[in-house]
Amino acid sequence: MNTPAIILVQPQMGENIGAAARAMFNLGLDELRLVSPRDGWPSPAADKNSAGALARMQNVQVFDTLNEAIADLHYVIAATARPRDMLKPVYTPEAGIKECRTRADQGQKTGFIFGPERMGLINDAIAKCHGVITIPTNPDFSSLNLAQSVLLLAYEWTRNQDNTPDKIMEMGDSFPVDQEKLEEFLTRLEEELETRRFFRTEEIRPTMKRNIRGIFTRADLSDQEVRTLHGMLSALIGKKAS
Amino acid sequence: MNTPAIILVQPQMGENIGAAARAMFNLGLDELRLVSPRDGWPSPAADKNSAGALARMQNVQVFDTLNEAIADLHYVIAATARPRDMLKPVYTPEAGIKECRTRADQGQKTGFIFGPERMGLINDAIAKCHGVITIPTNPDFSSLNLAQSVLLLAYEWTRNQDNTPDKIMEMGDSFPVDQEKLEEFLTRLEEELETRRFFRTEEIRPTMKRNIRGIFTRADLSDQEVRTLHGMLSALIGKKAS
Repeated sequence: MNTPAIILVQPQMGENIGAAARAMFNLGLDELRLVSPRDGWPSPAADKNSAGALARMQNVQVFDTLNEAIADLHYVIAATARPRDMLKPVYTPEAGIKECRTRADQGQKTGFIFGPERMGLINDAIAKCHGVITIPTNPDFSSLNLAQSVLLLAYEWTRNQDNTPDKIMEMGDSFPVDQEKLEEFLTRLEEELETRRFFRTEEIRPTMKRNIRGIFTRADLSDQEVRTLHGMLSALIGKKAS
Repeated sequence: MNTPAIILVQPQMGENIGAAARAMFNLGLDELRLVSPRDGWPSPAADKNSAGALARMQNVQVFDTLNEAIADLHYVIAATARPRDMLKPVYTPEAGIKECRTRADQGQKTGFIFGPERMGLINDAIAKCHGVITIPTNPDFSSLNLAQSVLLLAYEWTRNQDNTPDKIMEMGDSFPVDQEKLEEFLTRLEEELETRRFFRTEEIRPTMKRNIRGIFTRADLSDQEVRTLHGMLSALIGKKAS
Protein backbone atom coordinates (compact mmCIF):
# COMPACT_ATOMS: atom_id res chain seq x y z
CA MET A 1 0.00 0.00 0.00
CA ASN A 2 1.18 3.48 -0.88
CA THR A 3 1.17 5.24 2.49
CA PRO A 4 2.55 8.70 3.23
CA ALA A 5 5.97 9.33 4.71
CA ILE A 6 6.01 11.27 7.98
CA ILE A 7 8.86 13.78 7.89
CA LEU A 8 10.05 15.42 11.11
CA VAL A 9 12.23 18.46 10.45
CA GLN A 10 14.88 19.12 13.11
CA PRO A 11 13.03 17.45 15.94
CA GLN A 12 14.50 18.47 19.28
CA MET A 13 13.75 15.83 21.91
CA GLY A 14 14.27 12.13 21.31
CA GLU A 15 11.23 11.53 23.52
CA ASN A 16 9.06 13.39 21.05
CA ILE A 17 10.42 11.48 18.08
CA GLY A 18 9.59 8.27 19.94
CA ALA A 19 6.09 9.45 20.79
CA ALA A 20 5.51 10.50 17.17
CA ALA A 21 6.74 7.11 15.92
CA ARG A 22 4.45 5.34 18.32
CA ALA A 23 1.48 7.47 17.28
CA MET A 24 1.95 6.93 13.53
CA PHE A 25 2.65 3.22 13.89
CA ASN A 26 -0.45 2.81 16.05
CA LEU A 27 -2.41 3.88 13.01
CA GLY A 28 -0.48 1.77 10.56
CA LEU A 29 2.02 4.25 9.09
CA ASP A 30 5.61 3.02 9.19
CA GLU A 31 7.65 5.34 7.03
CA LEU A 32 9.43 7.90 9.20
CA ARG A 33 12.02 10.37 7.91
CA LEU A 34 14.05 12.55 10.24
CA VAL A 35 15.80 15.68 9.03
CA SER A 36 18.86 16.39 11.22
CA PRO A 37 17.45 15.54 14.64
CA ARG A 38 19.08 17.85 17.18
CA ASP A 39 20.44 15.18 19.49
CA GLY A 40 21.62 12.80 16.77
CA TRP A 41 20.49 9.35 15.80
CA PRO A 42 19.93 6.65 16.97
CA SER A 43 18.37 7.97 20.15
CA PRO A 44 17.82 5.83 23.24
CA ALA A 45 15.20 8.33 24.46
CA ALA A 46 13.32 7.95 21.19
CA ASP A 47 13.50 4.16 21.35
CA LYS A 48 12.20 4.11 24.89
CA ASN A 49 9.31 6.47 24.24
CA SER A 50 8.25 4.70 21.07
CA ALA A 51 7.04 1.74 23.15
CA GLY A 52 8.63 -0.63 20.66
CA ALA A 53 7.35 1.11 17.54
CA LEU A 54 10.76 2.27 16.23
CA ALA A 55 12.22 -1.21 16.53
CA ARG A 56 9.36 -2.64 14.51
CA MET A 57 9.01 0.01 11.83
CA GLN A 58 10.56 -1.09 8.57
CA ASN A 59 11.30 2.28 7.26
CA VAL A 60 13.09 4.88 9.41
CA GLN A 61 15.61 7.10 7.65
CA VAL A 62 17.71 10.10 8.63
CA PHE A 63 18.63 12.93 6.24
CA ASP A 64 20.80 16.01 6.52
CA THR A 65 18.44 18.28 4.63
CA LEU A 66 14.76 18.56 3.88
CA ASN A 67 15.54 18.54 0.16
CA GLU A 68 17.08 15.08 0.47
CA ALA A 69 14.25 13.87 2.68
CA ILE A 70 11.58 14.74 0.12
CA ALA A 71 13.54 14.14 -3.10
CA ASP A 72 11.53 11.08 -4.15
CA LEU A 73 8.11 12.44 -3.14
CA HIS A 74 5.57 13.81 -5.60
CA TYR A 75 3.26 15.64 -3.26
CA VAL A 76 4.14 17.04 0.13
CA ILE A 77 1.99 18.81 2.66
CA ALA A 78 3.16 20.80 5.66
CA ALA A 79 1.35 20.37 8.96
CA THR A 80 1.54 23.83 10.41
CA ALA A 81 -0.41 26.88 11.45
CA ARG A 82 -1.88 28.89 8.63
CA PRO A 83 0.97 30.75 6.98
CA ARG A 84 0.37 34.48 6.92
CA ASP A 85 2.68 35.62 4.20
CA MET A 86 2.73 32.92 1.60
CA LEU A 87 0.44 31.91 -1.18
CA LYS A 88 -0.42 28.32 -0.31
CA PRO A 89 -3.61 26.33 -0.27
CA VAL A 90 -4.57 25.69 3.35
CA TYR A 91 -6.55 22.51 3.90
CA THR A 92 -8.49 20.97 6.74
CA PRO A 93 -6.96 17.62 7.69
CA GLU A 94 -9.87 15.90 6.00
CA ALA A 95 -9.58 17.74 2.68
CA GLY A 96 -5.77 17.76 2.61
CA ILE A 97 -5.51 14.08 3.23
CA LYS A 98 -8.21 13.33 0.73
CA GLU A 99 -6.04 15.14 -1.81
CA CYS A 100 -3.05 13.05 -0.73
CA ARG A 101 -5.04 9.85 -1.01
CA THR A 102 -6.22 10.70 -4.49
CA ARG A 103 -2.62 11.20 -5.52
CA ALA A 104 -1.43 8.08 -3.70
CA ASP A 105 -4.09 6.10 -5.52
CA GLN A 106 -2.56 7.34 -8.77
CA GLY A 107 0.82 6.03 -7.65
CA GLN A 108 2.23 9.30 -6.40
CA LYS A 109 4.36 9.16 -3.29
CA THR A 110 3.17 11.59 -0.61
CA GLY A 111 4.55 13.00 2.62
CA PHE A 112 3.52 15.10 5.61
CA ILE A 113 6.11 17.48 7.01
CA PHE A 114 6.19 18.52 10.67
CA GLY A 115 8.41 21.24 12.11
CA PRO A 116 10.46 21.27 15.30
CA GLU A 117 8.59 21.29 18.61
CA ARG A 118 7.19 24.70 19.55
CA MET A 119 8.94 26.53 16.71
CA GLY A 120 7.09 24.97 13.82
CA LEU A 121 8.22 25.01 10.23
CA ILE A 122 10.18 27.89 8.80
CA ASN A 123 8.86 29.56 5.67
CA ASP A 124 11.58 28.08 3.48
CA ALA A 125 10.34 24.62 4.38
CA ILE A 126 6.69 25.51 3.85
CA ALA A 127 7.61 26.96 0.46
CA LYS A 128 8.71 23.49 -0.67
CA CYS A 129 5.27 22.05 0.05
CA HIS A 130 2.28 21.85 -2.25
CA GLY A 131 -0.07 22.84 0.51
CA VAL A 132 -0.61 23.22 4.21
CA ILE A 133 -2.81 21.28 6.59
CA THR A 134 -3.90 23.22 9.64
CA ILE A 135 -5.55 21.24 12.41
CA PRO A 136 -8.49 23.24 13.75
CA THR A 137 -7.98 23.64 17.50
CA ASN A 138 -9.57 25.61 20.31
CA PRO A 139 -8.66 29.24 19.55
CA ASP A 140 -8.34 29.86 23.30
CA PHE A 141 -6.18 26.84 24.02
CA SER A 142 -4.05 25.36 21.35
CA SER A 143 -1.25 23.18 22.67
CA LEU A 144 -1.12 20.15 20.39
CA ASN A 145 2.29 18.61 20.62
CA LEU A 146 4.25 16.95 17.84
CA ALA A 147 3.07 13.39 18.54
CA GLN A 148 -0.55 14.54 18.79
CA SER A 149 -0.36 16.30 15.45
CA VAL A 150 1.19 13.21 13.87
CA LEU A 151 -1.50 11.07 15.50
CA LEU A 152 -4.35 13.18 14.14
CA LEU A 153 -3.05 13.21 10.57
CA ALA A 154 -2.29 9.50 10.70
CA TYR A 155 -5.79 8.92 12.03
CA GLU A 156 -7.27 11.03 9.27
CA TRP A 157 -5.32 9.01 6.71
CA THR A 158 -6.50 5.73 8.20
CA ARG A 159 -10.06 6.95 8.52
CA ASN A 160 -10.04 7.75 4.84
CA GLN A 161 -8.91 4.31 3.80
CA ASP A 162 -10.06 2.06 6.55
CA ASN A 163 -12.94 -0.15 5.49
CA THR A 164 -14.19 -1.05 8.93
CA PRO A 165 -17.99 -1.12 8.72
CA ASP A 166 -19.57 1.99 10.27
CA LYS A 167 -21.59 -0.07 12.66
CA ILE A 168 -21.60 -3.72 13.50
CA MET A 169 -23.73 -5.44 16.06
CA GLU A 170 -21.42 -7.42 18.27
CA MET A 171 -23.37 -10.61 18.92
CA GLY A 172 -20.90 -12.73 20.87
CA ASP A 173 -21.90 -16.38 20.52
CA SER A 174 -25.40 -15.36 19.73
CA PHE A 175 -27.30 -14.57 16.53
CA PRO A 176 -30.19 -12.27 15.71
CA VAL A 177 -33.50 -13.92 16.35
CA ASP A 178 -35.44 -14.89 13.26
CA GLN A 179 -38.82 -13.38 12.64
CA GLU A 180 -40.69 -16.57 13.34
CA LYS A 181 -39.32 -16.88 16.88
CA LEU A 182 -39.80 -13.17 17.51
CA GLU A 183 -43.41 -13.44 16.33
CA GLU A 184 -43.96 -16.48 18.52
CA PHE A 185 -42.82 -14.55 21.54
CA LEU A 186 -44.83 -11.44 20.70
CA THR A 187 -47.95 -13.50 20.12
CA ARG A 188 -47.50 -15.27 23.40
CA LEU A 189 -46.93 -11.95 25.16
CA GLU A 190 -50.09 -10.50 23.64
CA GLU A 191 -52.11 -13.53 24.61
CA GLU A 192 -50.94 -13.37 28.19
CA LEU A 193 -51.74 -9.67 28.26
CA GLU A 194 -55.20 -10.38 26.78
CA THR A 195 -55.86 -13.00 29.43
CA ARG A 196 -54.99 -10.47 32.12
CA ARG A 197 -57.19 -7.79 30.52
CA PHE A 198 -54.27 -5.49 29.89
CA PHE A 199 -56.02 -3.99 26.87
CA ARG A 200 -58.82 -2.09 28.54
CA THR A 201 -60.78 -1.17 25.42
CA GLU A 202 -61.17 -2.39 21.87
CA GLU A 203 -60.12 1.04 20.63
CA ILE A 204 -56.70 1.13 22.18
CA ARG A 205 -55.83 -2.51 21.52
CA PRO A 206 -54.32 -2.09 18.02
CA THR A 207 -52.22 0.93 19.03
CA MET A 208 -50.99 -0.70 22.20
CA LYS A 209 -50.03 -3.83 20.32
CA ARG A 210 -48.11 -1.84 17.78
CA ASN A 211 -46.30 0.02 20.51
CA ILE A 212 -45.34 -3.18 22.28
CA ARG A 213 -44.11 -4.69 19.04
CA GLY A 214 -42.12 -1.53 18.41
CA ILE A 215 -40.25 -1.88 21.68
CA PHE A 216 -39.13 -5.44 21.03
CA THR A 217 -38.47 -5.05 17.34
CA ARG A 218 -36.32 -1.98 17.78
CA ALA A 219 -34.16 -3.83 20.28
CA ASP A 220 -32.52 -6.00 17.61
CA LEU A 221 -32.93 -9.07 19.79
CA SER A 222 -30.79 -12.16 19.63
CA ASP A 223 -32.25 -15.63 19.80
CA GLN A 224 -30.81 -16.04 23.28
CA GLU A 225 -32.48 -12.85 24.40
CA VAL A 226 -35.83 -14.04 23.13
CA ARG A 227 -35.39 -17.24 25.13
CA THR A 228 -34.63 -15.06 28.14
CA LEU A 229 -37.77 -13.03 27.50
CA HIS A 230 -39.83 -16.21 27.34
CA GLY A 231 -38.36 -17.21 30.70
CA MET A 232 -39.08 -13.79 32.16
CA LEU A 233 -42.63 -13.92 30.94
CA SER A 234 -43.16 -17.36 32.42
CA ALA A 235 -41.73 -16.19 35.72
CA LEU A 236 -43.89 -13.08 35.76
CA ILE A 237 -47.08 -14.98 35.18
CA GLY A 238 -46.11 -17.53 37.82
CA LYS A 239 -45.41 -20.39 35.47
CA LYS A 240 -42.39 -22.63 35.61
CA ALA A 241 -40.09 -21.97 32.66
CA SER A 242 -40.64 -24.65 30.02
CA MET B 1 -23.31 24.42 22.23
CA ASN B 2 -24.30 20.95 23.34
CA THR B 3 -20.94 19.16 23.49
CA PRO B 4 -20.31 15.69 24.89
CA ALA B 5 -19.02 15.04 28.38
CA ILE B 6 -15.77 13.09 28.60
CA ILE B 7 -16.04 10.56 31.42
CA LEU B 8 -12.92 8.88 32.77
CA VAL B 9 -13.71 5.84 34.90
CA GLN B 10 -11.22 5.15 37.69
CA PRO B 11 -8.26 6.81 36.01
CA GLN B 12 -5.03 5.76 37.68
CA MET B 13 -2.34 8.38 37.11
CA GLY B 14 -2.97 12.08 37.61
CA GLU B 15 -0.58 12.69 34.70
CA ASN B 16 -2.93 10.86 32.37
CA ILE B 17 -5.95 12.78 33.59
CA GLY B 18 -4.03 15.98 32.88
CA ALA B 19 -2.99 14.83 29.43
CA ALA B 20 -6.57 13.80 28.62
CA ALA B 21 -7.88 17.17 29.80
CA ARG B 22 -5.33 18.96 27.65
CA ALA B 23 -6.22 16.85 24.62
CA MET B 24 -9.97 17.41 24.86
CA PHE B 25 -9.64 21.12 25.62
CA ASN B 26 -7.30 21.53 22.66
CA LEU B 27 -10.23 20.50 20.52
CA GLY B 28 -12.77 22.61 22.32
CA LEU B 29 -14.40 20.12 24.71
CA ASP B 30 -14.50 21.32 28.32
CA GLU B 31 -16.78 19.00 30.22
CA LEU B 32 -14.72 16.42 32.10
CA ARG B 33 -16.17 13.95 34.59
CA LEU B 34 -13.99 11.75 36.74
CA VAL B 35 -15.30 8.62 38.40
CA SER B 36 -13.32 7.87 41.58
CA PRO B 37 -9.81 8.71 40.36
CA ARG B 38 -7.39 6.38 42.14
CA ASP B 39 -5.15 9.03 43.65
CA GLY B 40 -7.91 11.40 44.69
CA TRP B 41 -8.79 14.85 43.54
CA PRO B 42 -7.59 17.54 43.06
CA SER B 43 -4.33 16.20 41.66
CA PRO B 44 -1.20 18.35 41.32
CA ALA B 45 0.15 15.86 38.75
CA ALA B 46 -2.99 16.28 36.67
CA ASP B 47 -2.84 20.07 36.90
CA LYS B 48 0.78 20.09 35.82
CA ASN B 49 0.29 17.75 32.88
CA SER B 50 -2.80 19.56 31.64
CA ALA B 51 -0.64 22.52 30.56
CA GLY B 52 -3.20 24.87 32.03
CA ALA B 53 -6.26 23.17 30.55
CA LEU B 54 -7.76 21.99 33.86
CA ALA B 55 -7.54 25.45 35.37
CA ARG B 56 -9.38 26.91 32.41
CA MET B 57 -12.05 24.29 31.88
CA GLN B 58 -15.39 25.41 33.28
CA ASN B 59 -16.75 22.03 33.90
CA VAL B 60 -14.71 19.41 35.79
CA GLN B 61 -16.62 17.19 38.19
CA VAL B 62 -15.79 14.17 40.31
CA PHE B 63 -18.24 11.37 41.09
CA ASP B 64 -18.12 8.27 43.26
CA THR B 65 -19.88 6.02 40.79
CA LEU B 66 -20.41 5.76 37.04
CA ASN B 67 -24.17 5.80 37.62
CA GLU B 68 -23.94 9.23 39.20
CA ALA B 69 -21.57 10.47 36.50
CA ILE B 70 -23.97 9.61 33.68
CA ALA B 71 -27.29 10.21 35.48
CA ASP B 72 -28.21 13.29 33.42
CA LEU B 73 -27.01 11.95 30.05
CA HIS B 74 -29.33 10.61 27.37
CA TYR B 75 -26.86 8.78 25.18
CA VAL B 76 -23.53 7.36 26.25
CA ILE B 77 -20.91 5.61 24.24
CA ALA B 78 -17.98 3.58 25.56
CA ALA B 79 -14.57 4.00 23.94
CA THR B 80 -13.16 0.53 24.17
CA ALA B 81 -12.04 -2.50 22.28
CA ARG B 82 -14.78 -4.49 20.63
CA PRO B 83 -16.58 -6.36 23.39
CA ARG B 84 -16.65 -10.09 22.76
CA ASP B 85 -19.50 -11.22 24.92
CA MET B 86 -22.07 -8.51 24.82
CA LEU B 87 -24.71 -7.48 22.38
CA LYS B 88 -23.76 -3.89 21.60
CA PRO B 89 -23.55 -1.87 18.42
CA VAL B 90 -19.87 -1.25 17.67
CA TYR B 91 -19.20 1.95 15.75
CA THR B 92 -16.24 3.47 13.98
CA PRO B 93 -15.36 6.81 15.59
CA GLU B 94 -16.89 8.55 12.59
CA ALA B 95 -20.21 6.72 12.68
CA GLY B 96 -20.50 6.67 16.48
CA ILE B 97 -19.87 10.36 16.79
CA LYS B 98 -22.23 11.14 13.97
CA GLU B 99 -24.90 9.32 15.98
CA CYS B 100 -23.97 11.39 19.04
CA ARG B 101 -24.13 14.61 17.06
CA THR B 102 -27.54 13.78 15.68
CA ARG B 103 -28.77 13.27 19.21
CA ALA B 104 -27.01 16.37 20.52
CA ASP B 105 -28.68 18.39 17.78
CA GLN B 106 -32.01 17.16 19.13
CA GLY B 107 -31.08 18.45 22.56
CA GLN B 108 -29.91 15.14 24.02
CA LYS B 109 -26.92 15.25 26.34
CA THR B 110 -24.19 12.81 25.28
CA GLY B 111 -21.05 11.38 26.83
CA PHE B 112 -18.02 9.29 25.95
CA ILE B 113 -16.78 6.87 28.60
CA PHE B 114 -13.15 5.80 28.89
CA GLY B 115 -11.85 3.07 31.17
CA PRO B 116 -8.78 3.01 33.40
CA GLU B 117 -5.38 2.98 31.71
CA ARG B 118 -4.37 -0.45 30.40
CA MET B 119 -7.31 -2.25 31.95
CA GLY B 120 -10.08 -0.65 29.95
CA LEU B 121 -13.73 -0.68 30.86
CA ILE B 122 -15.29 -3.56 32.72
CA ASN B 123 -18.34 -5.20 31.20
CA ASP B 124 -20.69 -3.73 33.79
CA ALA B 125 -19.70 -0.26 32.64
CA ILE B 126 -20.02 -1.14 28.95
CA ALA B 127 -23.46 -2.57 29.65
CA LYS B 128 -24.63 0.88 30.72
CA CYS B 129 -23.71 2.34 27.34
CA HIS B 130 -25.84 2.57 24.23
CA GLY B 131 -22.95 1.59 22.03
CA VAL B 132 -19.24 1.18 21.69
CA ILE B 133 -16.72 3.13 19.64
CA THR B 134 -13.62 1.18 18.70
CA ILE B 135 -10.74 3.16 17.22
CA PRO B 136 -9.24 1.16 14.36
CA THR B 137 -5.54 0.73 15.07
CA ASN B 138 -2.66 -1.23 13.64
CA PRO B 139 -3.50 -4.86 14.47
CA ASP B 140 0.21 -5.52 15.01
CA PHE B 141 0.82 -2.51 17.22
CA SER B 142 -1.96 -1.03 19.23
CA SER B 143 -0.78 1.12 22.10
CA LEU B 144 -3.04 4.17 22.11
CA ASN B 145 -2.99 5.69 25.55
CA LEU B 146 -5.88 7.35 27.36
CA ALA B 147 -5.08 10.90 26.25
CA GLN B 148 -4.63 9.78 22.64
CA SER B 149 -8.00 8.03 22.62
CA VAL B 150 -9.63 11.12 24.10
CA LEU B 151 -7.84 13.27 21.52
CA LEU B 152 -9.05 11.19 18.58
CA LEU B 153 -12.69 11.17 19.68
CA ALA B 154 -12.58 14.89 20.48
CA TYR B 155 -11.04 15.48 17.06
CA GLU B 156 -13.73 13.40 15.39
CA TRP B 157 -16.40 15.41 17.22
CA THR B 158 -14.83 18.69 16.15
CA ARG B 159 -14.32 17.48 12.60
CA ASN B 160 -18.00 16.71 12.40
CA GLN B 161 -19.10 20.14 13.51
CA ASP B 162 -16.27 22.38 12.53
CA ASN B 163 -17.13 24.62 9.61
CA THR B 164 -13.62 25.50 8.55
CA PRO B 165 -13.63 25.58 4.74
CA ASP B 166 -12.02 22.47 3.23
CA LYS B 167 -9.50 24.51 1.35
CA ILE B 168 -8.65 28.16 1.41
CA MET B 169 -5.97 29.89 -0.56
CA GLU B 170 -3.89 31.85 1.87
CA MET B 171 -3.12 35.03 -0.03
CA GLY B 172 -1.41 37.15 2.58
CA ASP B 173 -1.76 40.81 1.52
CA SER B 174 -2.30 39.77 -2.03
CA PHE B 175 -5.37 38.99 -4.13
CA PRO B 176 -6.01 36.67 -7.07
CA VAL B 177 -5.12 38.33 -10.35
CA ASP B 178 -8.06 39.30 -12.50
CA GLN B 179 -8.40 37.78 -15.94
CA GLU B 180 -7.56 41.00 -17.76
CA LYS B 181 -4.15 41.29 -16.11
CA LEU B 182 -3.49 37.60 -16.57
CA GLU B 183 -4.39 37.84 -20.24
CA GLU B 184 -2.16 40.90 -20.63
CA PHE B 185 0.78 38.97 -19.26
CA LEU B 186 0.09 35.87 -21.33
CA THR B 187 -0.26 37.92 -24.49
CA ARG B 188 2.97 39.70 -23.77
CA LEU B 189 4.69 36.40 -23.08
CA GLU B 190 3.42 34.92 -26.35
CA GLU B 191 4.55 37.96 -28.29
CA GLU B 192 8.01 37.81 -26.84
CA LEU B 193 8.16 34.12 -27.65
CA GLU B 194 6.96 34.82 -31.19
CA THR B 195 9.64 37.45 -31.62
CA ARG B 196 12.26 34.93 -30.58
CA ARG B 197 10.86 32.25 -32.90
CA PHE B 198 10.02 29.92 -30.03
CA PHE B 199 7.13 28.42 -32.00
CA ARG B 200 9.00 26.51 -34.66
CA THR B 201 6.04 25.61 -36.86
CA GLU B 202 2.54 26.83 -37.50
CA GLU B 203 1.21 23.41 -36.60
CA ILE B 204 2.49 23.31 -33.08
CA ARG B 205 1.76 26.95 -32.24
CA PRO B 206 -1.84 26.53 -31.00
CA THR B 207 -1.00 23.52 -28.85
CA MET B 208 2.07 25.14 -27.38
CA LYS B 209 0.12 28.27 -26.56
CA ARG B 210 -2.58 26.28 -24.83
CA ASN B 211 0.02 24.41 -22.83
CA ILE B 212 1.69 27.61 -21.72
CA ARG B 213 -1.62 29.11 -20.73
CA GLY B 214 -2.41 25.96 -18.81
CA ILE B 215 0.70 26.32 -16.72
CA PHE B 216 -0.01 29.86 -15.65
CA THR B 217 -3.75 29.48 -15.25
CA ARG B 218 -3.46 26.42 -13.07
CA ALA B 219 -1.13 28.24 -10.74
CA ASP B 220 -3.94 30.42 -9.28
CA LEU B 221 -1.74 33.47 -9.54
CA SER B 222 -2.06 36.56 -7.39
CA ASP B 223 -1.80 40.07 -8.84
CA GLN B 224 1.56 40.46 -7.13
CA GLU B 225 2.82 37.27 -8.73
CA VAL B 226 1.80 38.46 -12.16
CA ARG B 227 3.76 41.66 -11.58
CA THR B 228 6.68 39.49 -10.59
CA LEU B 229 6.30 37.46 -13.77
CA HIS B 230 6.30 40.63 -15.85
CA GLY B 231 9.51 41.64 -14.12
CA MET B 232 11.05 38.23 -14.71
CA LEU B 233 10.10 38.36 -18.35
CA SER B 234 11.62 41.81 -18.77
CA ALA B 235 14.80 40.63 -17.09
CA LEU B 236 15.01 37.53 -19.23
CA ILE B 237 14.68 39.44 -22.47
CA GLY B 238 17.23 42.00 -21.29
CA LYS B 239 14.83 44.87 -20.71
CA LYS B 240 14.76 47.07 -17.67
CA ALA B 241 11.64 46.39 -15.62
CA SER B 242 9.04 49.09 -16.24
